[in-house]
Amino acid sequence: MPSSGFSTNMRFKFSLLAIVLEAILIALFGIFVRYKEFSTYQLHEEQTLHLELYPFFQDVHVMIFVGFGFLMTFLKKYGFTSVGINMLIAALGIQWGTLMQGFWHMKEGEIQITVKSMINADFSTATVLISFGALLGKTSPVQMMILTIMEIIFFSSSALKYYFSATDIGASMTIHAFGAYFGLAAARVLYRPGLKKGHENEGSSYHSDKFAMIGTIFLWLFWPSFNSAIAVPGDPQYRAIVNTYFSLAACTVAAFAFSSFIEHRGKFDMVHIQNATLAGGVAVGSCADLGIKTFGAMLIGFVAAIISGIGFKFLTPLLASYLKIQDTCGVHNLHGLPGILGGIASIIAAAIQVEHLPSHPISVGMQAAALGCTLGIALIGGAFAG
Amino acid sequence: MPSSGFSTNMRFKFSLLAIVLEAILIALFGIFVRYKEFSTYQLHEEQTLHLELYPFFQDVHVMIFVGFGFLMTFLKKYGFTSVGINMLIAALGIQWGTLMQGFWHMKEGEIQITVKSMINADFSTATVLISFGALLGKTSPVQMMILTIMEIIFFSSSALKYYFSATDIGASMTIHAFGAYFGLAAARVLYRPGLKKGHENEGSSYHSDKFAMIGTIFLWLFWPSFNSAIAVPGDPQYRAIVNTYFSLAACTVAAFAFSSFIEHRGKFDMVHIQNATLAGGVAVGSCADLGIKTFGAMLIGFVAAIISGIGFKFLTPLLASYLKIQDTCGVHNLHGLPGILGGIASIIAAAIQVEHLPSHPISVGMQAAALGCTLGIALIGGAFAG
Amino acid sequence: MPSSGFSTNMRFKFSLLAIVLEAILIALFGIFVRYKEFSTYQLHEEQTLHLELYPFFQDVHVMIFVGFGFLMTFLKKYGFTSVGINMLIAALGIQWGTLMQGFWHMKEGEIQITVKSMINADFSTATVLISFGALLGKTSPVQMMILTIMEIIFFSSSALKYYFSATDIGASMTIHAFGAYFGLAAARVLYRPGLKKGHENEGSSYHSDKFAMIGTIFLWLFWPSFNSAIAVPGDPQYRAIVNTYFSLAACTVAAFAFSSFIEHRGKFDMVHIQNATLAGGVAVGSCADLGIKTFGAMLIGFVAAIISGIGFKFLTPLLASYLKIQDTCGVHNLHGLPGILGGIASIIAAAIQVEHLPSHPISVGMQAAALGCTLGIALIGGAFAG
Repeated sequence: MPSSGFSTNMRFKFSLLAIVLEAILIALFGIFVRYKEFSTYQLHEEQTLHLELYPFFQDVHVMIFVGFGFLMTFLKKYGFTSVGINMLIAALGIQWGTLMQGFWHMKEGEIQITVKSMINADFSTATVLISFGALLGKTSPVQMMILTIMEIIFFSSSALKYYFSATDIGASMTIHAFGAYFGLAAARVLYRPGLKKGHENEGSSYHSDKFAMIGTIFLWLFWPSFNSAIAVPGDPQYRAIVNTYFSLAACTVAAFAFSSFIEHRGKFDMVHIQNATLAGGVAVGSCADLGIKTFGAMLIGFVAAIISGIGFKFLTPLLASYLKIQDTCGVHNLHGLPGILGGIASIIAAAIQVEHLPSHPISVGMQAAALGCTLGIALIGGAFAG
Repeated sequence: MPSSGFSTNMRFKFSLLAIVLEAILIALFGIFVRYKEFSTYQLHEEQTLHLELYPFFQDVHVMIFVGFGFLMTFLKKYGFTSVGINMLIAALGIQWGTLMQGFWHMKEGEIQITVKSMINADFSTATVLISFGALLGKTSPVQMMILTIMEIIFFSSSALKYYFSATDIGASMTIHAFGAYFGLAAARVLYRPGLKKGHENEGSSYHSDKFAMIGTIFLWLFWPSFNSAIAVPGDPQYRAIVNTYFSLAACTVAAFAFSSFIEHRGKFDMVHIQNATLAGGVAVGSCADLGIKTFGAMLIGFVAAIISGIGFKFLTPLLASYLKIQDTCGVHNLHGLPGILGGIASIIAAAIQVEHLPSHPISVGMQAAALGCTLGIALIGGAFAG
Repeated sequence: MPSSGFSTNMRFKFSLLAIVLEAILIALFGIFVRYKEFSTYQLHEEQTLHLELYPFFQDVHVMIFVGFGFLMTFLKKYGFTSVGINMLIAALGIQWGTLMQGFWHMKEGEIQITVKSMINADFSTATVLISFGALLGKTSPVQMMILTIMEIIFFSSSALKYYFSATDIGASMTIHAFGAYFGLAAARVLYRPGLKKGHENEGSSYHSDKFAMIGTIFLWLFWPSFNSAIAVPGDPQYRAIVNTYFSLAACTVAAFAFSSFIEHRGKFDMVHIQNATLAGGVAVGSCADLGIKTFGAMLIGFVAAIISGIGFKFLTPLLASYLKIQDTCGVHNLHGLPGILGGIASIIAAAIQVEHLPSHPISVGMQAAALGCTLGIALIGGAFAG
């Protein structure tokens, strides 16, 4: 696995840091973490409900390790690095995320593990992996491990649903926009002029594009599970599945149309396709469990594909030359812009008062505050971490 | 992505067509499509039942996008095209299929979306992807989009279960034989003499064969879900799972045996293995939920492997030279012949009156009529669409 | 598919053997195998319970065919062979395993198929595929088919839970240690001096390592399902999921740390990463459903990674030079040592009397006897079969 600037010194640093972190994690788990205990009374209702989430968990799990891991293999040279380091970060992140998220829900000083908390741990990892997409090739494994620890702290404290009563079931804002802008801010700080002209390693090749399609397709397939996994069972969960399914379908047709339109000679740009087809899943996230109707979901997907395409074609070069932000995998176009679009869509949904759960009212102000707050924490946190 | 004959003119044609189609789809969804509304009374029974189908839906979804997509990557040159265009067609097809199949089940002018209707939308897409396997390398993306629209119209109108009360739970006839003969008829019409000697692009390579095995294996694994997804819950669904599992296992051993037997020096032919191991899943489809017993299922799988092998070795060259039908991916051997075998097996099952649901009697005449009718509509429709 | 020493004679041998075996299997299924019949009374309870296992079955199924199949593709030259022959062996094994395991549970001379028996059939196949990892490149397909038949007979008779009342829910001992030592014993017997210096074909390449990561990651993801699939529903199944999830996460961080530490220049060794990250899943298997607490599971994963790493770096070369055992895929380090560790962990768990089901007491003596007995049968059986 190529890892630039990885000297003997680095070698011991990495091993030492990883071992020490893991030892601390085991100790903290020993102190705080317990199995969930189900009272006999709850057994049939609550425990069944919780194991019914297991297939959703597995779908999300596949997205984190196969989806994110292989999506980044399109880079000829970083192929194995991306899928390998993706695994390392994710494995570290799910342990740390369990603790950081658990601290907000402690009962009598204990963190209780459920399938839902495992889904949330996977979610917190997603944030880091999105940021990693902006930083691939710029950071060493040691830096990525430190970033993982820091980003999950910021993520857990920004978990806006505890502050505002905003809705963001598929986490367009909390995960996607957050992860993207955190990573971009860190990338700006880590900017080195020598990298300016674009790294030679950053080309894609024929086989590497097929590997990347493995990532794209597994993300695409299981996105309905991502957006519905922690939704309220019944109508909201059902709507989250259906809306995401149709948003992605509309997004894919639009992404192919746009890619052909803006490319020379009408060919499809592979990296563009690999990413823009997924923008609909990101953008529909915030509203996924609301009654936005299927055509509303498709409209969101359609617009997301266009915005993502414009980002790839025009914004990424601008970011690199003017703002000195090199977005290795284009996370701004897949997670950043569509994440903001998701936030805006949720503001509109609040304004026109689409159908929602009576117990979860949505308001324009809360959604706007959540969006602004997420972006703020992401940019400041990312710059700090970088 | 290489796409022969894709001029500037084509570029705007494709983009325009895709955008217009998507806009029409969004409009039609706005007019006709609604969420399923569950009355409070049904909530526990019907809604639970419908979300229990979600894992089956995801298995089928993986087959459509990963299975069909990667199965066609064995072609060295069309690797990315096949998995990319597969995604485009499928995304278009699930939207169009939702409408076309929904029109047959409208309630008060509305199409209601359930997990089952999403499975059926994926099914209608499967038909087009099978035909695509016969046409790969002969058609432009524009032609494929038009074909998708046309084939799903024919498919929905040929959905024989509404006309005849025939049984075809795993759709050996309605999907596999239909898709194959539709595609072959279209390929015949699109025949160009320049392609006669076999396209240079149609070779396979070492790595492309491993990518194709990703497709093969995911199809193989989830075929029990394909054949049981819309079966009646309880015994029929259980039988569909078990019968498909054992049919595929027997088919695989027979496919390796036959491949070694007919190849020079006893080696295995990779393209043959990639396809013939799946023939048992196709062939057992029509009878999957009937009480054909496990050894009956294994016999069907065994015969399917032999028929598929003979098709690859002897029939495909004959089709190309005498009938001028170039079957790029050998869909005749994977879907066509085993699909017919499935229809015949269901006729035999009707004749010997195997166990079935009292509410779904099966008769020799109905099964034979369904098989004949499907083939007829496929050939006429395919020639017309071509 | 390259297959050394595969002459014309061999060609007919293989085809004949495969056809005859399959014919015998179909006949035996005709005589002994029946669908499970659910009495009306049991319908709601038992049948629902059994279809709830279907997602677990599919996860295990993916591990067997995708996981084991692609894990072995890291070998440049044997890429297609490994995934192809893996499929053949597994397809044969699930039929034979259904019969062999079924004979222990016959009711009125019948073997009844349930989703659980399908999971057990997949399990019996896993044993053979582990052994195959030690034998890849040394055996012809004919030999592998005979070995499959023999190993599953030994495996079924060693299925210790019927003799001892030992606990081994994730089969650290019964599957992993058994399969590894059976394969190593066979490899010792099949040792040919010409292979001593290491086969030229046994190198890995850049693309083949990415294919192998497909195998690694799908095994990693679904291991919680492997260890919990046949656990008692409720708390034990829930604990098996949670313990395996955290054991694997801790194992992965430790595996990267150790790999960086022992490699030159701090790089990661890819083959090491591909395997050692999984050792935690193997090692936690025996105790997975017990109340070992999450930090206990993480400790087991941590130690497993270190032991597996030491095995790869130091033991594998020693085995090859002193004991003349060439372990092609390093199964000793992934399944053998961590399997024994799992057995030892279960002895310790018994000694400190961790939480368990009242109906399943665990004792030090029984666990130790099970471990010793499994290893004994594996070594003798493997040498005999070799």
